[in-house]
Amino acid sequence: MEEWDEVEVPKNVKDIFIEMKNTAELMVDLAYSAVLFKEKEMAEEVLELEEYLDILNYNLAVRAVLAARNMKEAERITSILQMARSIDDISDAAGDLAKMVLEEKLHPLITEVILESEETIGKIVVSPESVLVGKTLEELDLATNTGVRIIAIRRGKRWIFDPDEDTKIFPNDILIGRGTRTALDYLKEIARGNIKVMPNE
Amino acid sequence: MEEWDEVEVPKNVKDIFIEMKNTAELMVDLAYSAVLFKEKEMAEEVLELEEYLDILNYNLAVRAVLAARNMKEAERITSILQMARSIDDISDAAGDLAKMVLEEKLHPLITEVILESEETIGKIVVSPESVLVGKTLEELDLATNTGVRIIAIRRGKRWIFDPDEDTKIFPNDILIGRGTRTALDYLKEIARGNIKVMPNE
Repeated sequence: MEEWDEVEVPKNVKDIFIEMKNTAELMVDLAYSAVLFKEKEMAEEVLELEEYLDILNYNLAVRAVLAARNMKEAERITSILQMARSIDDISDAAGDLAKMVLEEKLHPLITEVILESEETIGKIVVSPESVLVGKTLEELDLATNTGVRIIAIRRGKRWIFDPDEDTKIFPNDILIGRGTRTALDYLKEIARGNIKVMPNE
Repeated sequence: MEEWDEVEVPKNVKDIFIEMKNTAELMVDLAYSAVLFKEKEMAEEVLELEEYLDILNYNLAVRAVLAARNMKEAERITSILQMARSIDDISDAAGDLAKMVLEEKLHPLITEVILESEETIGKIVVSPESVLVGKTLEELDLATNTGVRIIAIRRGKRWIFDPDEDTKIFPNDILIGRGTRTALDYLKEIARGNIKVMPNE
């Protein structure tokens, strides 16, 4: 993601728009994770995604404006630009959170607040005995089967941000997931190898 | 929530802060639901929550500033105010989305984008034969067991926004839930009565 000149942007308005919404939501999750675990690399990823989202937003605006042919169409297209701005505002808020991580002045209360919210973030260590090992995220469908959305994976010294459905889980991976406390605890039991059967089996 | 003078605000900084984060997240979910289903009542709820969040934010700021005793503490407390502002920015973006619903100028593309994002919103109609009927949200723990977070329930002519864990499900309730498409489809099968056993049984 270093070379923004060469970054690939989806070709049509709809796909750009979907990519914007998904990216902003990932940014919020990653920003809270970065704050919680004081992970600077993750905070930097959020700031890179913020730049990517600006590019998407610009591309969306140009294409949307081009599509307006009359007054009525122009009015409805304005709603697209407005929603894109809301998404962009959310991503900026995530960016501001990420900057706090890089500045290293976090009050301990912030950690508590993230941990005690309805939806929280957790670290899940995958034991070599776990049924998760060797399966792809698509096969596991953890969002449906455990209520946890995986937002990043730590493998040895590197990060995989926003892993896709083909990503396979390795022994000793550390999964960063978002969900309720109960959902995260449930996935932890599976990851430890204490629960041997996935609910979809 | 009409009488803001009498609104109850949690007493300490931490609880206010947690309430702010939960409220902002609910607002985003409700705002997307309002946009998707063109539900003005839901949009108005988002705007009321935006006012509530402003009150929370003010109360947090006063209490946080009072707590600072020296330079170092003041710096760390600033991070609390900064995170509160990020949360407030997110809630403002949700408010802007809600206003679009009230203005009735939504482009059809917006619906498609919400439906096709990684996390989407669905309406789930509860058949009288479903195993969901008569159980509380706590007993069901749908977030863990199906990956769907219930953000509102339509019961006859009235809305229950942000139902709590004691809320019981009635026959013919319409649940508004957030999750992946697979998760929402799974819950729909349970709600239709086609799946008779909850995964936690």
